[in-house]
Amino acid sequence: MRGLGISAGIGIGKAFIYKEPELNISKGHISDLEAEIQRLEEAISKAAGQIDDLYEMTLKKTGKKEADVFAAHRMFLEDPEYLSYIKEKIIGDRVNSEWAVREAADFYTSLFEAMEDEYMRARAADIEDVSNRLLRILSKAEQKELLQINEKTIIVAKDLAPSDTAQINKDMIAGIVTEAGGRTSHTAIMARTMNIPLVCGLKNITDIAKQNDFIIINGNTGEVIINPTKDEIAFHEKEAESIKRLQEELNKMKGQESISKDGYKVEVLGNIGTCQDVDMVMENDGEGVGLYRTEFLYMHNDRLPTEEEQFAAYKIAAEKLGKKPLIIRTLDVGGDKGIPYLNIPEEMNPFLGYRAIRFCLDMKEIFAVQLRAILRASAYGNVKIMFPMISGIEEVRRAKAMVEEVKAELRKENLDFNEDIEIGIMVEIPSVAIHSRAFAKEVDFFSIGTNDLIQYTLAVDRGNQKVGHLYNQFHPAVLSLIKMTIDNGHAEGIRVGMCGEAAGDERMIPLLLAMGLDEFSMNASQILKARHVIKNTSKEAAEGILNAVLELPTAPEVESCIDENIP
Amino acid sequence: MRGLGISAGIGIGKAFIYKEPELNISKGHISDLEAEIQRLEEAISKAAGQIDDLYEMTLKKTGKKEADVFAAHRMFLEDPEYLSYIKEKIIGDRVNSEWAVREAADFYTSLFEAMEDEYMRARAADIEDVSNRLLRILSKAEQKELLQINEKTIIVAKDLAPSDTAQINKDMIAGIVTEAGGRTSHTAIMARTMNIPLVCGLKNITDIAKQNDFIIINGNTGEVIINPTKDEIAFHEKEAESIKRLQEELNKMKGQESISKDGYKVEVLGNIGTCQDVDMVMENDGEGVGLYRTEFLYMHNDRLPTEEEQFAAYKIAAEKLGKKPLIIRTLDVGGDKGIPYLNIPEEMNPFLGYRAIRFCLDMKEIFAVQLRAILRASAYGNVKIMFPMISGIEEVRRAKAMVEEVKAELRKENLDFNEDIEIGIMVEIPSVAIHSRAFAKEVDFFSIGTNDLIQYTLAVDRGNQKVGHLYNQFHPAVLSLIKMTIDNGHAEGIRVGMCGEAAGDERMIPLLLAMGLDEFSMNASQILKARHVIKNTSKEAAEGILNAVLELPTAPEVESCIDENIP
Repeated sequence: MRGLGISAGIGIGKAFIYKEPELNISKGHISDLEAEIQRLEEAISKAAGQIDDLYEMTLKKTGKKEADVFAAHRMFLEDPEYLSYIKEKIIGDRVNSEWAVREAADFYTSLFEAMEDEYMRARAADIEDVSNRLLRILSKAEQKELLQINEKTIIVAKDLAPSDTAQINKDMIAGIVTEAGGRTSHTAIMARTMNIPLVCGLKNITDIAKQNDFIIINGNTGEVIINPTKDEIAFHEKEAESIKRLQEELNKMKGQESISKDGYKVEVLGNIGTCQDVDMVMENDGEGVGLYRTEFLYMHNDRLPTEEEQFAAYKIAAEKLGKKPLIIRTLDVGGDKGIPYLNIPEEMNPFLGYRAIRFCLDMKEIFAVQLRAILRASAYGNVKIMFPMISGIEEVRRAKAMVEEVKAELRKENLDFNEDIEIGIMVEIPSVAIHSRAFAKEVDFFSIGTNDLIQYTLAVDRGNQKVGHLYNQFHPAVLSLIKMTIDNGHAEGIRVGMCGEAAGDERMIPLLLAMGLDEFSMNASQILKARHVIKNTSKEAAEGILNAVLELPTAPEVESCIDENIP
Repeated sequence: MRGLGISAGIGIGKAFIYKEPELNISKGHISDLEAEIQRLEEAISKAAGQIDDLYEMTLKKTGKKEADVFAAHRMFLEDPEYLSYIKEKIIGDRVNSEWAVREAADFYTSLFEAMEDEYMRARAADIEDVSNRLLRILSKAEQKELLQINEKTIIVAKDLAPSDTAQINKDMIAGIVTEAGGRTSHTAIMARTMNIPLVCGLKNITDIAKQNDFIIINGNTGEVIINPTKDEIAFHEKEAESIKRLQEELNKMKGQESISKDGYKVEVLGNIGTCQDVDMVMENDGEGVGLYRTEFLYMHNDRLPTEEEQFAAYKIAAEKLGKKPLIIRTLDVGGDKGIPYLNIPEEMNPFLGYRAIRFCLDMKEIFAVQLRAILRASAYGNVKIMFPMISGIEEVRRAKAMVEEVKAELRKENLDFNEDIEIGIMVEIPSVAIHSRAFAKEVDFFSIGTNDLIQYTLAVDRGNQKVGHLYNQFHPAVLSLIKMTIDNGHAEGIRVGMCGEAAGDERMIPLLLAMGLDEFSMNASQILKARHVIKNTSKEAAEGILNAVLELPTAPEVESCIDENIP
């Protein structure tokens, strides 16, 4: 059988069939509202107890980071918006708690799943997870615990919830096979982070495989063998060994410099969505944070975050990183990242609309609060400011003038900040890349945001299935714009980084190295692999390939050329 | 008083206060449906009679082109969709004819007004006009006739309908002042075409000015003087004289070549929306048609146009133009140009979505019919094919392969066409401009579509009020892309034209001339003015200005530099 190989490596072990109890939620009419609310409150309190227990056990058995999943779940369980949504459903529609919880879960997960930001999308799984716990308790369904597993096991499941993966003990779990899921699912991200082989998309596997079947899975190829022959076992054990060696090689990357075969030094950094994410960047030996997405602070509540709340978050991240850089991107709302309480009117083409710096320069009071918080945090680490969605130099000048105004305020109030804080911009709109020589004179650094840059350069909404096939980072025009940006940045003596998905792409890295990119910022789980690619690439050889591909007419031809020339 | 000067020139004459009767349409309940439908039919037939009379009189007093407005109105009056909308309202909702006509008018005008295409937007005024005629007849309201005016007159109106402007006799009407309207209104376009001074946006002017007041209007400055002093009259008569001389100078441009002061020859062409529009291009001595928007053929009906219908339209345009080029752009649907019967699903960002060539390469049967019609028309003139919304060379190759397939079919069927028909692309997506050297190897010509190119390059939906201020054709990045496209086109030996609004902009023309643009295509009314600008510009001097502005950081600085250096 063959599914999608999502997390690399070979896993060999006994099957543990992990099926969530099927919950048939039906809509009921409630006559005694008081009793129903009481029943809900009891379920919530029982769920809180379960989560607290899991937190303690996970902390003991695996670690702080895994346990933090449950800390986050406690927070969701206490979220006033989520709870009042449920209660209002029960009272307003006179429906049973199960129905109301199911509706709340659907509402909030679809809200989060529609977001562009990978980090925010991943939160949908947590909401679903907490809601399912409530539903199980309300339905008196039993729940298995993955924490109990104590021999080399392959987990076979429909999908895993964050509270499941948090319980996974790396030493006991040899691999995971799921029916659902894809490259960016919660399970996928966790498996890659924990280096557990994962194969997804195998329909009915929870019916086909039986408890204690012997199973081999190959997370590179997607292969799954149930009750293999001796030869198959021998073959895959050998394979596993070589993959393990590669993994060890990646682990050896920790503590090393990111330096090419021919001695060209760059930096590999991580992208984060909350200050807690810094831990994972540090664990993967990131050389700093190239992109701190601050939207989460604004989306987590039904009101704007205060200056103190923001300051606290930025300060934690800055302190955790010490001397390593922390690039904080100012609020990037609008587009598909709606924040209901901001009441941004609906737009015909939100990606070409009122978002990010366009919004901030219009809503100066909101912007000033964030700038104050960032500047104050700059006293505690190596903080830099970055503005998103810049299209013209006027915007840069206006945003910088705002920073100066805020600095003057802070000086008056005798509050500490870094007077020389660096200010940079995202290069994600074609006009900026094209005119980058002039922009480079106005800022301290560039960070290329490939996701949006590709969208605008090719006029393709990559979320639109009808045209998604036209979205391609290897389009020669995209490569030209990236090169232009780097060349122009260097001509004016500033550093150029990249924080879009392309920065972590194995086939893209050699080209970026050839162009002279200074900083590669990516998801924490990709850092060591990226460093490994860099250390195995000769910049000079890559320059030859770069020159060849820039002359090619189409993206597929570029891709073939890379595949032929880069081992 | 000062309004908006919309159509240049000074008008001096007696006021003619032209107020449409106020119609208070109220909703009534109909019990005798048959009688109501009968009443509607009678009104329609009376309206048809009026329109026919106006057609005859206008044909006699002014000319064929003006009279054609009434031919179009007759068509609308017979449009099955429009009529069945009204009748279904009456029968379905049991409402009176007035109410049903008002609703039909609102529905169809808002449909047309929402379109990007200027030509299509202008059709909204015709629908409103025909509907108002029906409403006046149904309400037994009286109607004045502008045709009767027989001394030098300034028309003072709330706004003018197409049937009003069609009645205007250029020799009698010295100017127009309206309360409503803007630069792109129907009245504005007509006034500019007929060279009648027009001032818009003067609130309550129909109450302030009295019948037979003596009035001076200045369509350049927006000034309006009621009952002026002798000195004022003398001053404005002198002004009028100099403006008249300029107009005469423009008329002298007819029959001349479009050639710069220092002898660099280019071509000035017109953009059209229907084959009839060729007349206006010819009248303004256009050197061909640089853009034939074929959408109208698809939007005018509730089904796809047949091959024969398309062929007939393209053939008429080709024959009218003789040896002059006719560049037919293939179907550019999607985006904001929806065609209900095509059932294109709603998109989050239609401008970055499934439109134009993306749609056509997917719906090959629809595309093939249009290509057949264009190719067959190519036997009757100098027809060229142009593909819109190209982003990658794969698309060019696939579209060209389709042309080859259709050619093979036609050969088999012994149908005539031009074997060497030229094929070009719109350059309106940044990737094409950036990679234009490679694209130029694949096609016979480029035509730069500035409206979309600016939108994508700056990531600004210009229809979005919140961000429209960021849309600027003088952004240095936009200028760079245009220059890059022209340079690369020329390096590969192909001609480069422009059919976006920038091509007709007086301040842009010198820069485009400096860049070496070969063809300027614009609304017919702008052709002579553009030629005048070209003839008064030295390409060499413009090159100096171009080099200076390309180094400037922002669009406002570019604009100032142009204003300072170009008289």
